[in-house]
Amino acid sequence: MSASWEAIALHVQGERARKIPPAWQLPPQLLDSKQQDVSKIPASCGILSRVEIDITSNDATAILENIHSGKWTAEQVCLAFCKRAAIAQQLVNCLTDICFEEALETARSLDKKFRSSGKPVGTLHGLPISIKDHVNVAGLRSTLGYCAWADNIPTEDAVLVDALKQAGAIVFTKTTMPVTGMAIETVSKLWGRTTCGFNRSLVSGGSSGGDGALVGMYGAPVGIGTDIAGSIRVPCAFNGLYGIRPSMKRLSYQGLTSNVRGARGITGTIGPMCHSVRDIELICKVVTDAEPWHVDANVIRKAWISRPLVPSRLTIGVMKFDGVVMPHPPILRGLDEAARKLKEAGHEVIEFEPHDHMRAWNIAYPLYYATGCNEMQVLLDRTGEPWPPAAKRLSANPALRELSASELYKLHAAQDDYKAEYLRHWNKTVQSSISGRPIDALLCPINPCASYPHDHLTWWGYAAQWSLLDYPGVVLPVGFVDKTRDVRDSGYRPISDLDRENYELYDPELWHGAPIGLQLVGRNLDEERLLAVSAVVDDVVNRDSGQRQTRPNGNPKL
Amino acid sequence: MSASWEAIALHVQGERARKIPPAWQLPPQLLDSKQQDVSKIPASCGILSRVEIDITSNDATAILENIHSGKWTAEQVCLAFCKRAAIAQQLVNCLTDICFEEALETARSLDKKFRSSGKPVGTLHGLPISIKDHVNVAGLRSTLGYCAWADNIPTEDAVLVDALKQAGAIVFTKTTMPVTGMAIETVSKLWGRTTCGFNRSLVSGGSSGGDGALVGMYGAPVGIGTDIAGSIRVPCAFNGLYGIRPSMKRLSYQGLTSNVRGARGITGTIGPMCHSVRDIELICKVVTDAEPWHVDANVIRKAWISRPLVPSRLTIGVMKFDGVVMPHPPILRGLDEAARKLKEAGHEVIEFEPHDHMRAWNIAYPLYYATGCNEMQVLLDRTGEPWPPAAKRLSANPALRELSASELYKLHAAQDDYKAEYLRHWNKTVQSSISGRPIDALLCPINPCASYPHDHLTWWGYAAQWSLLDYPGVVLPVGFVDKTRDVRDSGYRPISDLDRENYELYDPELWHGAPIGLQLVGRNLDEERLLAVSAVVDDVVNRDSGQRQTRPNGNPKL
Repeated sequence: MSASWEAIALHVQGERARKIPPAWQLPPQLLDSKQQDVSKIPASCGILSRVEIDITSNDATAILENIHSGKWTAEQVCLAFCKRAAIAQQLVNCLTDICFEEALETARSLDKKFRSSGKPVGTLHGLPISIKDHVNVAGLRSTLGYCAWADNIPTEDAVLVDALKQAGAIVFTKTTMPVTGMAIETVSKLWGRTTCGFNRSLVSGGSSGGDGALVGMYGAPVGIGTDIAGSIRVPCAFNGLYGIRPSMKRLSYQGLTSNVRGARGITGTIGPMCHSVRDIELICKVVTDAEPWHVDANVIRKAWISRPLVPSRLTIGVMKFDGVVMPHPPILRGLDEAARKLKEAGHEVIEFEPHDHMRAWNIAYPLYYATGCNEMQVLLDRTGEPWPPAAKRLSANPALRELSASELYKLHAAQDDYKAEYLRHWNKTVQSSISGRPIDALLCPINPCASYPHDHLTWWGYAAQWSLLDYPGVVLPVGFVDKTRDVRDSGYRPISDLDRENYELYDPELWHGAPIGLQLVGRNLDEERLLAVSAVVDDVVNRDSGQRQTRPNGNPKL
Repeated sequence: MSASWEAIALHVQGERARKIPPAWQLPPQLLDSKQQDVSKIPASCGILSRVEIDITSNDATAILENIHSGKWTAEQVCLAFCKRAAIAQQLVNCLTDICFEEALETARSLDKKFRSSGKPVGTLHGLPISIKDHVNVAGLRSTLGYCAWADNIPTEDAVLVDALKQAGAIVFTKTTMPVTGMAIETVSKLWGRTTCGFNRSLVSGGSSGGDGALVGMYGAPVGIGTDIAGSIRVPCAFNGLYGIRPSMKRLSYQGLTSNVRGARGITGTIGPMCHSVRDIELICKVVTDAEPWHVDANVIRKAWISRPLVPSRLTIGVMKFDGVVMPHPPILRGLDEAARKLKEAGHEVIEFEPHDHMRAWNIAYPLYYATGCNEMQVLLDRTGEPWPPAAKRLSANPALRELSASELYKLHAAQDDYKAEYLRHWNKTVQSSISGRPIDALLCPINPCASYPHDHLTWWGYAAQWSLLDYPGVVLPVGFVDKTRDVRDSGYRPISDLDRENYELYDPELWHGAPIGLQLVGRNLDEERLLAVSAVVDDVVNRDSGQRQTRPNGNPKL
């Protein structure tokens, strides 16, 4: 006889709580606080030393420089992040299976090797990394948030995790995701609800929302997330992070626990969520240099080219509105300011017209659910756990049903037609550019909101659009919602019920202080060039803030 | 009201016949001959001049050298191939829509440009190329052999055809394929039956059987074929040619006429069929250097690396029998002789055990027909034309039915599992090699027969195996069936009905003189390395014959 889902959840959450040593436990007044912005607590609560605050405020590249130069030990760095992740867990509930002790043991062993050989074991020697729940790590739970899978413990690392470990990275915790994986907030009965550290009334995004919240709290320098419809990009945007959804099959997706196998039209992708463009490049290069095609029959055999040259004067397309749901005022301001700064820096900015994005959603949505979502229902039913409201609205929509192979092929053919049209549409920007080139990248929203309240179902089109087309997307933070500047646009007239729902949702008071992230979209399998362009854009857009890449340490909220 | 299929076929075949000028028509005694080997007729019939025989006996690389050096004009070369293709058509019925006049006009225009600029317009300046029926060429019929599509004339070139034309190649004819595309012989009511020039009692292979027969008769230096289950590799083998089935999406497949769209598990590939490894490399490089990803949203963005270095001492796996259907004696002799020559030349040859190839077929077969073959039946029904017997046995098998999306996903997942297992299996060859590397390529049959009688359904597993796995395959000719050496193996005991059927089919008298081709299989998306290995193997295996690459001119049968 099987346990109730309540008993299962109680068990795993209790086990998780016991992995946090008493010395790292927050005092009751902080734990019970109604404070919504908890992003400053890790540095102010007194659990971290001054050096540990310094360590955890850096991006991965800077951390590695300091370990490899001998300034910091791997153990010191790992301990700092274990502590900070433990604090983040108590504030925003972002971790699942914790392995701090094993990680510290690994760090000590790396330090020993470093001392004896005088050199790092690999490029990522000593870098603590968090891994999303369903990306397999030997010995740690892979649950997809299902109570039924609470005790699914794989014995082999995912190919990408193995490459990270071989390069010297240390997995120190796994992170939450919404049950089923199909939500862009993060909630499950098994692990509870993850919130955004900048504003706990809002979601941390999803489905890589645990990584998003954790890295957003500087509780990990890098989290490994996955994205089939925005699941890396959305939590990056909601937590002030950098991240990439690479093209399908560019990075190895082998060795993940999955509830629906065999989809081909839109498939999951995997990538880093972190604090700089250069960290994205670092992780992608390390896992590609490992030549995963020798062990993964589906990953694309294609070398990683470091930072290719891009034109000194870029041509950037800007799309503010996809024609379906108008973004909230802070997103529009973020786009306007970025466009203005790009122009001031001498780059060309041209307006990009969306091409029938509602049609893209009408192809993508049934493609995501071609089998009618039966696998998810079966897994929930196994313990009787209920659907979270937003996931239910999306995934248990009575309009969804299992397709026939012919219907599925028709959707694939519609996807091919749309891809062909969109490529022509993109190429046509050459006609409106002064550079004589089509746009080098497209700057656009990743979500109409800068985060949103729990249990809401937001418009996915700004993310799923590029998943259907398989264009890579990089997310950049550009600032924070400011209730005095980002007032409601009382003159806006919604164009549909969907648009109205999003319009009416916005409340400057509620959103104040939430991060604003934007998306840069590039061409299929052209990740390196998109990242090179992103680095230039980031430098221009975030130059004033003194926070990105160039900052020696310290995060914006510390 | 629509015409009968008989009337449609009569009409297009009549039009085709009228495109052959009287001076190129064979005399009745040659036309009506019961002679089975007609491969020597083009050179002996008196229609070609001595220079034209010389021109048409070269591979593409040598032809281009002579055009670009000014020794031959493009017109002279084009005329020679138009004549020889016209002769081939009368002997083996390999052409569909002919455009000799337009091709000669293009050749003259290229000559003019060459005279005025002193240089070729591109790498393929002046190279005549034949194109398989369903690969779109603006202004020429794309029919897939369906009478219902006799008048389907696309207005745009396929992306790959455009790249060839941009590089200076001249399309001078389209070539036959079996109706539906799903057969590895070539027969349709619309265009009739294509036979093998070396032995007209046998099939030319399929589905790129028109290209196979034509290039085999030296009626074109290069034909562009397509392959979803052996359709390039099988006709290459049956007509003594070199060819490649690249990995899916490596070369652009955009702009083809198709009767089933939206498949994702196993998709069509496109590639050259020709007279040397270097010609394969030439064509692949030209169409990849054109950067087709700017116009085709599905082709993989990956540069072509010319002839990468391979170890001087190769490790070649040899698999003679896939465990399902034992190849006929000439194929086994071809493999034995190749293995012996490789060993004599200092290369390492290790035995390769098949890994559950019947399972591969059981995944691949329903994947090919996931929609239950309805699209084909509808198109046949439109004019009432009957199924050819072998295609009917394969495609109208009552056991086939339309799958549900869940069933299809299960097949895709089974494909992924099998791919993962096979990669491990392949990598395990490192344990039996002296080189300390897994095998550099696998030498194996591409079909259990060296061609076969018309309307027979042969075992597809030696081809479909690698389509399911998406490993590229290169075909090399290694000689001809010799009835005195390739006697029946009277001691062989078939292991199944399928195996027995193939065993009983073999008749040394009937097969005498048919070409023997073998397959070299490499790793996914590693075409360049596979071709570099193939060049070494070809040099070793065909050195004695003095026919391949090194021959200045003259084909083996001239």
